[in-house]
Amino acid sequence: MEMVKLSINTERLLADFNALARIGATPAGGINRTALSLEDLEARAWFADQVEAAGLLMRDDDAGNLSGVLPSTNPDARTLLIGSHLDSVPNGGRYDGSVGVLAGLECLRTIREAGYELPVHLEVVNFTDEEGTWYSLLGSRGMAGTLPGGKLQAAQGHDASFRAALTRAGINEQDLHRARRDPAALAGYLELHIEQGGSLDARGLNCGIVSDIVGRISTLLTFHGEAGHSGTTDMYRRRDALQGAALFVTQAHLIVHDRFDGAVVNCGRLEVLPGIFNIIPSEARLLLEVRHREAEALEEVLHELLDQAHSCAETYGLYLSHEQVAHVPPAHMDDQVAGALARACEAVGATYDAVVGYAGHDAQIMGTVTPAGMLFIPSIGAISHTPQEYTPWDDVVRGANVLLHTILDLAHP
Amino acid sequence: MEMVKLSINTERLLADFNALARIGATPAGGINRTALSLEDLEARAWFADQVEAAGLLMRDDDAGNLSGVLPSTNPDARTLLIGSHLDSVPNGGRYDGSVGVLAGLECLRTIREAGYELPVHLEVVNFTDEEGTWYSLLGSRGMAGTLPGGKLQAAQGHDASFRAALTRAGINEQDLHRARRDPAALAGYLELHIEQGGSLDARGLNCGIVSDIVGRISTLLTFHGEAGHSGTTDMYRRRDALQGAALFVTQAHLIVHDRFDGAVVNCGRLEVLPGIFNIIPSEARLLLEVRHREAEALEEVLHELLDQAHSCAETYGLYLSHEQVAHVPPAHMDDQVAGALARACEAVGATYDAVVGYAGHDAQIMGTVTPAGMLFIPSIGAISHTPQEYTPWDDVVRGANVLLHTILDLAHP
Repeated sequence: MEMVKLSINTERLLADFNALARIGATPAGGINRTALSLEDLEARAWFADQVEAAGLLMRDDDAGNLSGVLPSTNPDARTLLIGSHLDSVPNGGRYDGSVGVLAGLECLRTIREAGYELPVHLEVVNFTDEEGTWYSLLGSRGMAGTLPGGKLQAAQGHDASFRAALTRAGINEQDLHRARRDPAALAGYLELHIEQGGSLDARGLNCGIVSDIVGRISTLLTFHGEAGHSGTTDMYRRRDALQGAALFVTQAHLIVHDRFDGAVVNCGRLEVLPGIFNIIPSEARLLLEVRHREAEALEEVLHELLDQAHSCAETYGLYLSHEQVAHVPPAHMDDQVAGALARACEAVGATYDAVVGYAGHDAQIMGTVTPAGMLFIPSIGAISHTPQEYTPWDDVVRGANVLLHTILDLAHP
Repeated sequence: MEMVKLSINTERLLADFNALARIGATPAGGINRTALSLEDLEARAWFADQVEAAGLLMRDDDAGNLSGVLPSTNPDARTLLIGSHLDSVPNGGRYDGSVGVLAGLECLRTIREAGYELPVHLEVVNFTDEEGTWYSLLGSRGMAGTLPGGKLQAAQGHDASFRAALTRAGINEQDLHRARRDPAALAGYLELHIEQGGSLDARGLNCGIVSDIVGRISTLLTFHGEAGHSGTTDMYRRRDALQGAALFVTQAHLIVHDRFDGAVVNCGRLEVLPGIFNIIPSEARLLLEVRHREAEALEEVLHELLDQAHSCAETYGLYLSHEQVAHVPPAHMDDQVAGALARACEAVGATYDAVVGYAGHDAQIMGTVTPAGMLFIPSIGAISHTPQEYTPWDDVVRGANVLLHTILDLAHP
């Protein structure tokens, strides 16, 4: 079968990778290319140049998503999307997001050069703000039509900066909903991404076919106590907000460890008021995040942790309040797309297994409106979101070839 | 004995109390009169007016301390100081510091009006920045000559604001050392202050004669871990700085509770870096404060807690660093002055007992250069440093009369 022999141009992919890694490069070898920053806008402009140079059609939308399209000869064809993102976390790595967009672009160039006429349009898309600098998964939510109505709450609460950033990128908040695509016009969604976790690296596998992406609930817990002079207030009559929060942090990890296999918890910040040496903390604000691949279990973990937080508060005579600030449901990837990914792994000779994705991805949003699949390639040492993030070049190339053959498989159902 | 009958003018003291409480008054009934603020400067100007109106000599020094002096007929006499402070913590109460200065002023007026000729000069002094808005106990340290040489480190690290504040009050940092008094010229130091703690209130006592003021060590602990993606990093391979710090907070209180009677500990702030939902904390910075009335035990508690912090860090694969940012040694009050305070309590008919002071006071600084004594009056409900701070008026008056008779006792040794 001729298609099996088709493979991407590795030199061209490497040249792209190196060129892109220079945009927002940091001295430590990482990148600063947060969404809608000048560096991100430069990366988008660079990507647009590559799209044009490759002879693809350029397409952008009202959410700032930027695509290269290889049209089918059938103008009424549906579109198979291949996406990821060029934005990074602050001081992030060169692989996260970037390799997915570049591999997709390279696949389209390869298919175009091979002269294949496919019954679907192919579109490689760079989604806006996957990392949530301003609004997590903004671009894919816009394309899937799942953005809430009304004004968006910026993730970090900097509404004026958020508006300025959108304006800088030529995005009008009122028009974001226009980015929505009719699901009937879509043939599916594919994404190649580094695993970020360490299961492929630990098991020596080339590829992971994502079965599920975990859901995530982010909650702000506030323990309310009573301020007082730290020297003169009786040690045993204190209502010390930090003691309650600290007990909860240790308990939360123990509970998840002992009782919720597959759940992941993080306490990412603890803020103490008034926050000086000689005043007993009157308030402790904790960012709590839980993840699980099953919706019901996710709710159960959160429920259990909130119970525990109430109990920790009670131990120190505190009052607990909490506010849910994000809830991303778990996503099950499409089984037929997973089948195509498996066949492509076989065709390319890549070792693989099913894996769970523990980070958020555009695939979980696109999966709500079209059959979606995700391919992971190894992250050495499970290191991600830092300049030390690393995936061997062979794994990138192998992943891009698996992506290529998955596209060809799905395009000829 | 005629002296026993002498007592202060309660109406005049009340008028002073009410007038002073209006300077920097907050709607909740507290005061904002942080050191060197415009409100503090206004309070000092008001105090200067009262000193002049009372026919006392006004005296100020290079540390911004402001005094009213009732001179002895013997120009070579030593000076008995009666002091406290007019500055407050942010959103503090009306009694802390203020009642000590006002009672001292009222005693001098009373003695002057009574026409007593004393063999010592009497001086009521308002010390600069007792509360440490800029530099804890700045005024008394200046007068005792215990300020370190060279540039002072502002408590909150705002060096430029500190300099501006000093300038605003007419204080030149280079001249602070000139505030030092020759100990040979001093006859002792007396201070009346609210207890801030609740032992007098709980035991129904009118007065507390301070035997010791606890020493205090303030230390900044930093737990160093490793950042990572909160979803994809293996739950059991994390080096989560917050988990180490949280465990330490709970352990520190347990250790002090179980093993160090008389010690007091506070964890006043915990800062987490980078401090977002989905990144494992790489750094947790904790403010730790320990107090004890014995120097050796104070060191022992700190040593034990640092050991514990190292062990908590080890539990989570973290590295611990620590920096001592303040060390105020414990102070034993003068036994003879305490005896005079006890005799004055008897003379006035006040119930009393020896107590330990758990907050910092100018008396502990002055006690290093002259025999010092401190009189506590009750704080209802142990509430202090808030607008709810309250001492019944009868207790203030009784305390002022005990102070008066202590002055007379010490002036006639």
